[in-house]
Amino acid sequence: MNKRAAIVGASGYSGEELVRLLLNHPHAELTAVTSRQYAGQTIAQAFRKFAHLPRARTLRFSEPNAELLAKQAEAVFLALPHGVAAEYAIPLLQLGCQVIDLSADFRVKNPAAYKEFYAHDHPAPDLLKKSVYGLPEIYRAQIKNAPLVASPGCYPTSILLPTIPLLREGLIRPTGIIADSISGVSGAGRKLEQDYLFVECNESARPYGIPKHRHLSEIEQELSLAAQTPVTIQFTPHLIPVSRGILTTIYLAPAEHFQSRTGVSPVSGLSNAATMDAVAEKISICYHSAFGNEPFIRLLDGKSLPDIKNVIGANVIEIAWRLDPRTGRLIVMSALDNIVKGASGQAVQSFNIMSGFPETAGLL
Amino acid sequence: MNKRAAIVGASGYSGEELVRLLLNHPHAELTAVTSRQYAGQTIAQAFRKFAHLPRARTLRFSEPNAELLAKQAEAVFLALPHGVAAEYAIPLLQLGCQVIDLSADFRVKNPAAYKEFYAHDHPAPDLLKKSVYGLPEIYRAQIKNAPLVASPGCYPTSILLPTIPLLREGLIRPTGIIADSISGVSGAGRKLEQDYLFVECNESARPYGIPKHRHLSEIEQELSLAAQTPVTIQFTPHLIPVSRGILTTIYLAPAEHFQSRTGVSPVSGLSNAATMDAVAEKISICYHSAFGNEPFIRLLDGKSLPDIKNVIGANVIEIAWRLDPRTGRLIVMSALDNIVKGASGQAVQSFNIMSGFPETAGLL
Amino acid sequence: MNKRAAIVGASGYSGEELVRLLLNHPHAELTAVTSRQYAGQTIAQAFRKFAHLPRARTLRFSEPNAELLAKQAEAVFLALPHGVAAEYAIPLLQLGCQVIDLSADFRVKNPAAYKEFYAHDHPAPDLLKKSVYGLPEIYRAQIKNAPLVASPGCYPTSILLPTIPLLREGLIRPTGIIADSISGVSGAGRKLEQDYLFVECNESARPYGIPKHRHLSEIEQELSLAAQTPVTIQFTPHLIPVSRGILTTIYLAPAEHFQSRTGVSPVSGLSNAATMDAVAEKISICYHSAFGNEPFIRLLDGKSLPDIKNVIGANVIEIAWRLDPRTGRLIVMSALDNIVKGASGQAVQSFNIMSGFPETAGLL
Amino acid sequence: MNKRAAIVGASGYSGEELVRLLLNHPHAELTAVTSRQYAGQTIAQAFRKFAHLPRARTLRFSEPNAELLAKQAEAVFLALPHGVAAEYAIPLLQLGCQVIDLSADFRVKNPAAYKEFYAHDHPAPDLLKKSVYGLPEIYRAQIKNAPLVASPGCYPTSILLPTIPLLREGLIRPTGIIADSISGVSGAGRKLEQDYLFVECNESARPYGIPKHRHLSEIEQELSLAAQTPVTIQFTPHLIPVSRGILTTIYLAPAEHFQSRTGVSPVSGLSNAATMDAVAEKISICYHSAFGNEPFIRLLDGKSLPDIKNVIGANVIEIAWRLDPRTGRLIVMSALDNIVKGASGQAVQSFNIMSGFPETAGLL
Repeated sequence: MNKRAAIVGASGYSGEELVRLLLNHPHAELTAVTSRQYAGQTIAQAFRKFAHLPRARTLRFSEPNAELLAKQAEAVFLALPHGVAAEYAIPLLQLGCQVIDLSADFRVKNPAAYKEFYAHDHPAPDLLKKSVYGLPEIYRAQIKNAPLVASPGCYPTSILLPTIPLLREGLIRPTGIIADSISGVSGAGRKLEQDYLFVECNESARPYGIPKHRHLSEIEQELSLAAQTPVTIQFTPHLIPVSRGILTTIYLAPAEHFQSRTGVSPVSGLSNAATMDAVAEKISICYHSAFGNEPFIRLLDGKSLPDIKNVIGANVIEIAWRLDPRTGRLIVMSALDNIVKGASGQAVQSFNIMSGFPETAGLL
Repeated sequence: MNKRAAIVGASGYSGEELVRLLLNHPHAELTAVTSRQYAGQTIAQAFRKFAHLPRARTLRFSEPNAELLAKQAEAVFLALPHGVAAEYAIPLLQLGCQVIDLSADFRVKNPAAYKEFYAHDHPAPDLLKKSVYGLPEIYRAQIKNAPLVASPGCYPTSILLPTIPLLREGLIRPTGIIADSISGVSGAGRKLEQDYLFVECNESARPYGIPKHRHLSEIEQELSLAAQTPVTIQFTPHLIPVSRGILTTIYLAPAEHFQSRTGVSPVSGLSNAATMDAVAEKISICYHSAFGNEPFIRLLDGKSLPDIKNVIGANVIEIAWRLDPRTGRLIVMSALDNIVKGASGQAVQSFNIMSGFPETAGLL
Repeated sequence: MNKRAAIVGASGYSGEELVRLLLNHPHAELTAVTSRQYAGQTIAQAFRKFAHLPRARTLRFSEPNAELLAKQAEAVFLALPHGVAAEYAIPLLQLGCQVIDLSADFRVKNPAAYKEFYAHDHPAPDLLKKSVYGLPEIYRAQIKNAPLVASPGCYPTSILLPTIPLLREGLIRPTGIIADSISGVSGAGRKLEQDYLFVECNESARPYGIPKHRHLSEIEQELSLAAQTPVTIQFTPHLIPVSRGILTTIYLAPAEHFQSRTGVSPVSGLSNAATMDAVAEKISICYHSAFGNEPFIRLLDGKSLPDIKNVIGANVIEIAWRLDPRTGRLIVMSALDNIVKGASGQAVQSFNIMSGFPETAGLL
Repeated sequence: MNKRAAIVGASGYSGEELVRLLLNHPHAELTAVTSRQYAGQTIAQAFRKFAHLPRARTLRFSEPNAELLAKQAEAVFLALPHGVAAEYAIPLLQLGCQVIDLSADFRVKNPAAYKEFYAHDHPAPDLLKKSVYGLPEIYRAQIKNAPLVASPGCYPTSILLPTIPLLREGLIRPTGIIADSISGVSGAGRKLEQDYLFVECNESARPYGIPKHRHLSEIEQELSLAAQTPVTIQFTPHLIPVSRGILTTIYLAPAEHFQSRTGVSPVSGLSNAATMDAVAEKISICYHSAFGNEPFIRLLDGKSLPDIKNVIGANVIEIAWRLDPRTGRLIVMSALDNIVKGASGQAVQSFNIMSGFPETAGLL
């Protein structure tokens, strides 16, 4: 039997992708989409690209109304700007809905950390305890019974999935981690700012938001949980002229190396070929053990390296890794579609888990 | 009085840009361009975009011939693939020409290092002693009287210029340096490989050539000279869908920090605000002292960060830096046009120095 | 029950898209894919982007062999370069397979016209009588029982679908038709030619192949059938820096206009507002009558105009039209994805019809 | 001696390009730039990409003030939005300045035509008589002594230059002309509208503004003057994902053809090879006679076709033509950089003529 689902705030890129995924979902029925901007229009009118889907020609956008939504749907996706999810999450949860929030509002567990990075008090600190960080490959069991899933976004997903297994296994040092990301422009949303005009982005590449990007709060929270020690990382996002996709390169120090040494630079320990091979094998085993059976994680063997063009439109993250015998460092690279595995696809993945559907339903 | 200049191997992107720069140069007369592919054609025929320049309609490509070139020009630019520059450099130098080589062939001083990275013996080890590494902001005095300038390419320039002053002043630790670069597709040259087809590059972003890129040999050579100690760095190039430009993000550790600590992660020392401010001031003074009067180095103050769109077509490198109080790291970012400041513009800059012309002649 | 399908020549962009569509098809089982280049590899190895689809990890490319294919599949898609389809079509048809050919080899009915445009004799003129031109919206009934469908490509589809209904109804003059198209680079296939390198296509726009493009032969054949008089058109293709998509603008003369006049320019007849409105209404009725219920034709009303970004990845053609009171001309615009509705999606649409499946199966 | 020049409204793309051209001009001294948005900032601060030019670091934007400007400059460029040029042109002309206006405000000579296309009365109809349409290749003599030059924009230039010589010589019929253009996004200016966001333009191609684009008023005015009969044309602009450039394809009917026929379609006359060759020769002679010595018009012979990548950044228009023996039509194609030959470069070209400088000064 199909499950009724609704989307609140469906006018942005993530909301639009949720519409696409849920209209094509074999076990979900999209019963409501809200948007103040598009209220009254059909999905086909607001997003012409879906006009060939029959349901898009009949379902109309409405003004958001929690009570009404609770009657229309068992599960509600919130695709709202930062800071306003609580306004809908609170009543929807009280009315018995499952809530999957795509904003950062319920991802940071510690209200103090939230305030440090977002510069205001959390609007619903009680809900933080109820929410589950919606990274299915890490928190599948908790997501299953969660009333509220805080579905992580693109940068966190691209950093956390490749790093958490290594930290959990103690294969890398929890200090000195650097994540360098390049992102497509849809990551900025449909904002009308000069910086995101075609002419300003085309033939451009630039860092931004450094050194203290807001998403560091949730990234470090999850890395610290994996490492069982506080983790502080370096994170540099860059904007490049593609519509979608994130490629992240992560610089890590294998733990073996540091057991015997005090700095990164003297690499004689690791450059010992036998040690290198042993470390490489442990890392490979770690990844295949953690993710070998995951339907949405593509571990790249051989000479392949991640490329966003291989994940665009798919709920997939590609991961590859290299040990550098010259420096002793481990370099891990990941690629995902920021709107799918980095947003709406991942949210539907959690929805599937919460609903008892096959986790890949509507996502292959 | 104008100086006669020639270009050997003018069919690639760097050669084409040399043609443009020398055709517009107020003190140079382009007297010969060679290319087996285009021999017999005028520049206007081979590169239609220059057809409105009068000289392009009369100057014809010829087969490369060192003796003839030595009669046609006082200075010869070599824009040849790796490994074949020696064939022309040897006779041209013997015949009294100044030679500016854009390949990597004369950049690595140590024949053993050359062999390690290029997998064959150097074809003219004697010339390595005569050649000067053509980074004008670092080796201006040596370039002035050099018979042979080995003009550095895009990745080395984007890493060396922001890093050398800090190493020379001892402001950063010479270990653990990471350089993460994103590059436009012209960096690969006009190679007919599937990887460089439009459809394979568009909406794509990918690392490549890791972990041991050939240019590491010259980068580490120059960093070691600046640090007066052997330096090994981590370098990760990525390809993004722009035609031109390189953006490099460099992760460094301020030296103060490490005098009292053994690892990167415990940052209490630097996160002390007063210490941070002192370090920041030293770095700022270092950069302004080293580069404040350089016509082609744009030090970005305030909130500005490098963007390749601000350097495309110009012989300019943009540099910005940030100290991160959370990690204690120094992040330095640079942007340049890989074909201009990362290749042909830089070569003309050396040509100007070698010729006693204003260094900015033909480059503003 | 599922139908077994095979793809011959699955290494190009159309073949790759066929793989995607058939792997996701609810009623088809992809049982064989052939490619000399990839023989022995799994689909997942050759096309990493499909690696998350379970079937892609087990199905391996083989060398093409008609006898074997006839045992493996009831329907065979040929995605081969021009001129070689007959080699497979002849034995496959003899062995009882349904054949859907994506090349131009069986689209031109007249062997003399074929020779005029393709410069060699047709390799299997007998098959031309058996083949059906695979434009489902025009030849649905014939496709249903066809053993051999010649599935049309991107330019023909973008011109024929908007023009045929008007010609059939006599609403436009069959003379003086102009079609001006702009196409993405995948239209050129995976050819290793300098013209298709990223740097040569990016920030470029150019006409090519004028004035006598090969596809004119089939376009004019089909327009002549619709008009019941020989039709000769003007067609100008252009290349623009997008990966996929074709936008075609067609200039037509309403027939009313010409009943009373001899030239296009004197527009007093049509600029009569009442006449204009009457013509406009007839055109609108014609389109809605012909295509109003077509699942893959999006007739744009109101102010909307076609945009390839609204059809990328979908088996959809967008069509809009405007009558210009100043010139008396009718301008019709269409947009489609050259690899989907302009190639592989359309082929699967015919496959569905030939198989008695819902026409939209696997295509929504 | 240098001439002092000022730019009013230098914050848009055309203004920015004027800054670049005048800063590099050998005979002009840029003495004032105005912009309400940037008032008080140096050029280097507002447009970082010019920061390596010494003058950019000292010249500051000011609020626009005609009296002050008249003291600062002999020639003033107006790079203002449509409708406001008169406010500055009137006082500047009274105060003795030469004025070069880049807007459409003084291009249409007939106030009634202006009102028809721009929907309001012309603000200074008296000035229309004084202004010269600033197409140097057509109106060089008049520009020389004009106090006010109305410098044409990108679409008009791309259509007029290839068409006027043919009309003047009577080689083409003045009726039924169609111009189909594809344009880069900078043509829309720095407008903050969703349509011009990177994600909305990338991988997009779309017509817009049809069928009655405002620039038709000036295009038809100039074509009518050339033909000495009223000319009405069909014009369809399209937007494609490049930053700069316009490619226009023009469909024309050779006049010979029509002397003996009443319609475009029956082509027996022209398809007569001898007639075709004669027509082709006349067209070639016409173009070479009109433009053969023009420094900024690149007539393409042989197999070459226009490509915007060959004119980006240059004050050049490429023109090629083909006679189609199948249809009897003449197809003329042109390419230019909408910001240079289609705006600021052309304005500087007029400035050179008005100032008695070599016409190519600062433009090669």
